[in-house]
Amino acid sequence: MAVPATLAVKHRPESRIETAVAILKQKFGERLSTAEAVRAQHGKGEDHFPVLPPDAVIFAESTEDVAEIVRVCAAHKVPVIPFGTGTSLEGHVGAVEGGITIDLSRMNNVLEVHAEDLDCRVQAGVTRKQLNEYLRDTGLFFPIDPGADASLGGMTATRASGTNAVRYGTMRENVLGLTVVLADGRIIRTARRSKKSAAGYDLTRLFVGSEGTLGVITEVALRLYGIPEAMSSAVCNYPSLEAAVNTVIATIQSGIPIARIEIVDEVQIDAINKYSGTSFPVEPTLFLEFHGSEASVKEQAEKVKELSDGFEGGDFKWTTSAEERKKLWQARHDAAYASKALRKGAEVWATDVCVPISRLAECVVETQEDIQRLGLIAPIVGHVGDGNFHVTLIADKNDADEMGRANEFNERLVMRALAMDGTCTGEHGIGMGKMDFLIAEHGDAVAVMRTIKKALDPDNIMNPGKVLRV
Amino acid sequence: MAVPATLAVKHRPESRIETAVAILKQKFGERLSTAEAVRAQHGKGEDHFPVLPPDAVIFAESTEDVAEIVRVCAAHKVPVIPFGTGTSLEGHVGAVEGGITIDLSRMNNVLEVHAEDLDCRVQAGVTRKQLNEYLRDTGLFFPIDPGADASLGGMTATRASGTNAVRYGTMRENVLGLTVVLADGRIIRTARRSKKSAAGYDLTRLFVGSEGTLGVITEVALRLYGIPEAMSSAVCNYPSLEAAVNTVIATIQSGIPIARIEIVDEVQIDAINKYSGTSFPVEPTLFLEFHGSEASVKEQAEKVKELSDGFEGGDFKWTTSAEERKKLWQARHDAAYASKALRKGAEVWATDVCVPISRLAECVVETQEDIQRLGLIAPIVGHVGDGNFHVTLIADKNDADEMGRANEFNERLVMRALAMDGTCTGEHGIGMGKMDFLIAEHGDAVAVMRTIKKALDPDNIMNPGKVLRV
Repeated sequence: MAVPATLAVKHRPESRIETAVAILKQKFGERLSTAEAVRAQHGKGEDHFPVLPPDAVIFAESTEDVAEIVRVCAAHKVPVIPFGTGTSLEGHVGAVEGGITIDLSRMNNVLEVHAEDLDCRVQAGVTRKQLNEYLRDTGLFFPIDPGADASLGGMTATRASGTNAVRYGTMRENVLGLTVVLADGRIIRTARRSKKSAAGYDLTRLFVGSEGTLGVITEVALRLYGIPEAMSSAVCNYPSLEAAVNTVIATIQSGIPIARIEIVDEVQIDAINKYSGTSFPVEPTLFLEFHGSEASVKEQAEKVKELSDGFEGGDFKWTTSAEERKKLWQARHDAAYASKALRKGAEVWATDVCVPISRLAECVVETQEDIQRLGLIAPIVGHVGDGNFHVTLIADKNDADEMGRANEFNERLVMRALAMDGTCTGEHGIGMGKMDFLIAEHGDAVAVMRTIKKALDPDNIMNPGKVLRV
Repeated sequence: MAVPATLAVKHRPESRIETAVAILKQKFGERLSTAEAVRAQHGKGEDHFPVLPPDAVIFAESTEDVAEIVRVCAAHKVPVIPFGTGTSLEGHVGAVEGGITIDLSRMNNVLEVHAEDLDCRVQAGVTRKQLNEYLRDTGLFFPIDPGADASLGGMTATRASGTNAVRYGTMRENVLGLTVVLADGRIIRTARRSKKSAAGYDLTRLFVGSEGTLGVITEVALRLYGIPEAMSSAVCNYPSLEAAVNTVIATIQSGIPIARIEIVDEVQIDAINKYSGTSFPVEPTLFLEFHGSEASVKEQAEKVKELSDGFEGGDFKWTTSAEERKKLWQARHDAAYASKALRKGAEVWATDVCVPISRLAECVVETQEDIQRLGLIAPIVGHVGDGNFHVTLIADKNDADEMGRANEFNERLVMRALAMDGTCTGEHGIGMGKMDFLIAEHGDAVAVMRTIKKALDPDNIMNPGKVLRV
């Protein structure tokens, strides 16, 4: 796909990088790799950008390891790129200016679980599924669920969310505190364990969503939740996408504490059926889930069904067994992979906008018209309870004309969301893909972000070329 | 009470301040006051610090007014102190280094209410009660409720919370975006209206809790909530404070979505009865409130009653009429004023710590022992669902020995909370009262806060002498 101007690789002086790599090789031995395959594997996320391999990859095993790497990189002004599972979607991990990638996947220990306080602390490389597996016998769970089984450090760095955010919030609301290695190698903890604090600037929230550009997150303290007494999922079809969206809007405006309310358009449903072996009717669909006591789940479901009927929604097809629910939501989570499988060799470009819920129907309808007008293959899915939806562009990157239309589509999508007082990204982040849109969205506030970046990372070594142009 | 060393007034060169005042007088005329009474009224909050009057007070009427004041102050390096209702509790508004106070109380317009999106935007001087009065016919409400009828700008600046935070979160979770005048007079907006965003650094959260030290908040966008179908309040007595606290812990750990769960000890109940003309039994007491559908409120209440019985709680005395509920919670909100009335001429020192809920009983019991050992008059109230409680010291500021014991008590209280992995302030903020405790709590992270402060306010004109020593 079209490569932004920023991708012109501005390698820092080779000698500096070579020196840093040599020093770190002595310390880390086989944990530092310069093998081409390893570098290439770390040079790209699940995004539409070219592979931009770093000069070396180091597999860190502790916060102290990370601090040592950063201290050496700082001394030689060499870029540092944090890497979790490599599932980010806006070019977060590409080594735009070369440098050293810190792979945090071996930092995968759950450090503490305080069941009685509903919180835990994990190393940054622990994935969301690994944490929930670990919690299995405690009666607790961690709800935030982007499509991929991402690392919790990466989810923090990109301010991720997912299908449960409408009820449980995003990483912004669910990170209690962080351990961070700063650009000069200092290690800080941003908060203690109390649920509230009014003590000083909110450094936790500053690092949540900073995408590795202010420091490397090495540990994450998280809120946990009791597994609800009752959970029940339903699938419902609608005559149009608009009818489905209007059901969502009415549900949210009624204040019903729904746990999940996800839209899937007919193109996406078809892709899911083919990929996951499901047999959902090929129509605009809502996937719903209710959490609470038995009585409350029943009451919520009845209320939503009544609203849904008003928009000609079909029957609710219910799933209550844990196994079936898991299958249902795995199919939903695999939507992007299902889309990718629609067209052999095609690249997936996962777009991501979020608007006030009152503008959602209008935004989705206009977007669908644009897909048709531009002749693109582009399923729609969305965490629509939050006003957040994704159009997954399935394009042939060797077809310049199609790429041009995809670019035009994405730009129009973002500008449409901004015109509706929405955001250019609900949960994927800025990376190198949305730096211009960040300016379009925030205007003069971007200068404040840049001031903070320069103050905390004066040599611009922390994941350079992402979020902000410095 | 004991005046911290930082209170040694370090007035900036008089000539600079005089020049700035003269320039601003030309612009603002009668809206700028140098009258002693006005200056004195703006030199102190509801705290235990001496009056530290500014050199002038300007009544701003727009964001542009604020920007103009700050631009002049920046040019002459004159301190700027934002002032809402003057109800802050840690010396936030005292003019430690002189300068100009911007009174925002005339900026009291509700600018937009988007009922369908459950959000609104207000000027910083709108108070929480004013907003709820304005929303009366919309079926919506704003839940955050510190004791005082504070301004929403001030509540944002101090990251305030209150009795509803256990269910609805604090200002951190409920501010959607801000308009801020920076230290050089630039005006920024930190976010648009979508519920989620992953676009860049979280400037909203950086300014929430920054206590006027990074900029002046002039407009606040807030989340709103539908008024629940059913609301029901209860009062319950316990044989000991510990029993009451243990009921709270069990309730939270069970994941019951209680709206309010407040502790009041026997000393405080007695004070409330005397001040508010109520006749609550003089025993350790919980004030409870349940929000939801009729069925859900009933179910929640039954579950909590069952837990409460296990700790020898008494009957739930129910209040369901809106009028009676209002009276009940007004009595709770007036707790600090009731405490003050306990002892004529005494000063109120509202302490504020927050600990993980598993440590709450231990922390409260040790604290109560300390009150007795030190011979202090000190009622306890608390938003205990969050692990947050206040000991209200009622002391004679002319009694050096008693003041010494009060200081000792507060220091031991904070250090006890920190030792339990809690915070030195749950909701009142740092102000000039807790700068050393901020360091004790955050260690090296305070250096990061200082770096940000210096980058955004290089001449240290924004509310100097608060939060951080620069």
